[in-house]
Amino acid sequence: MRTEILSYEADGLNMQASLYFEAGVSGQRPGILVFPEAFGLGEHAKSRARKLAGLGYIALACDLHGESKVFDDLGAVMPLIGALREAPARIRARAQGGLHALLARPEVDASRIAAIGYCFGGTMALELARGGAPIAGAVGFHSGLATAAPQDAHQIKGKVLVCLGADDPGIDSDQRKAFEAEMRAGKVDWQMNLYGGVVHSFTNPAADAMGRPDFARYDAKADARSWAAMRAFFDEIFAG
Amino acid sequence: MRTEILSYEADGLNMQASLYFEAGVSGQRPGILVFPEAFGLGEHAKSRARKLAGLGYIALACDLHGESKVFDDLGAVMPLIGALREAPARIRARAQGGLHALLARPEVDASRIAAIGYCFGGTMALELARGGAPIAGAVGFHSGLATAAPQDAHQIKGKVLVCLGADDPGIDSDQRKAFEAEMRAGKVDWQMNLYGGVVHSFTNPAADAMGRPDFARYDAKADARSWAAMRAFFDEIFAG
Repeated sequence: MRTEILSYEADGLNMQASLYFEAGVSGQRPGILVFPEAFGLGEHAKSRARKLAGLGYIALACDLHGESKVFDDLGAVMPLIGALREAPARIRARAQGGLHALLARPEVDASRIAAIGYCFGGTMALELARGGAPIAGAVGFHSGLATAAPQDAHQIKGKVLVCLGADDPGIDSDQRKAFEAEMRAGKVDWQMNLYGGVVHSFTNPAADAMGRPDFARYDAKADARSWAAMRAFFDEIFAG
Repeated sequence: MRTEILSYEADGLNMQASLYFEAGVSGQRPGILVFPEAFGLGEHAKSRARKLAGLGYIALACDLHGESKVFDDLGAVMPLIGALREAPARIRARAQGGLHALLARPEVDASRIAAIGYCFGGTMALELARGGAPIAGAVGFHSGLATAAPQDAHQIKGKVLVCLGADDPGIDSDQRKAFEAEMRAGKVDWQMNLYGGVVHSFTNPAADAMGRPDFARYDAKADARSWAAMRAFFDEIFAG
């Protein structure tokens, strides 16, 4: 597998993303943007991008805070995330930077691009779609659904899948209901998969180290189920 | 493919179910019960059972009203369904009759049984599980979720998947929310897949003939998505 660092400017930051793809494959392949959890671009998103590259995609694990900065303190990162949540244009700018970097690669089939993300990274994938980016699909895993610009849903060009823990305290039934209403009003092709007994960060084995199992907890079964759902979704959106 | 009619008594009725399986296969295979829409055992459930047989399962398309009776008038069938909804024990008895008939077949691996159903047939699959039947999983497609015995959810031994149209007027967000609460209280391993822009009977091409597209409408995309979700669910529950 080949790895490259792609640098780009976005929202005034110097982004350092990690590109993964299998070498020696001819022809253009679908490209996948992978947006990380709120802490920044760490091992979790990179490992998922490598898995995607192993499946034949060109995968770009995108930077969130610039300079590949990773926070280890939720208290330090939440004010930054809170400010972004008020400014969808800034979230979209950071995501679009990754999209443009990916589209600049000759290996990538520009007609077959998807964005996935985890936690706030899921929000980034959704905001990229809400901004009207030419992507075939967006997938959010334990993804924040709320947006300051729900009226933009009609700009979504691709399909949307969100995979959520039904007991995620951060994405409660009211937030799900508002998202449903937003997607319905925007006439989006959307799907929501709910996993019973599952909370936040269910795809991330490192979540348990947070020591807040009622809020964030790895769940191998939901991780496998949501990954399989994403693969089926890609098979559908990249077909034909 | 082999076809046989299996007769059994259940809830005072003489049931006539249709069994489908590939001939010439050695060894026991997983068995799937297929419960039909409220109208009774017609071509829709039979065709799904045949598809399952083609995938290597032993599939039993179960009778609902006895003597393989199929109603063509919703007005005639709804009073019967309404009475059943008040009497979960009767729904379970009808479903259990199919389960016992399937388990009596030497080709069937009794440790690998699932029940699926459409509309009221989904309710039958769920009630079979609520009654404590030894099945590995239950799948409901545009399935009625309400039950007169939510306190029985703790008896569910297998896993549960429901695939629903997010705009199904017959299975609204209040019903979904009550189901979530029921599954949570019963500590069930459950999943719910929601499809945006989709209403009732989305798996049934004959739904369009009803002429009520805001209530019931075939949706090829949601049909394919939910079938793929069921297959992934079977792969999981029948593994190992």
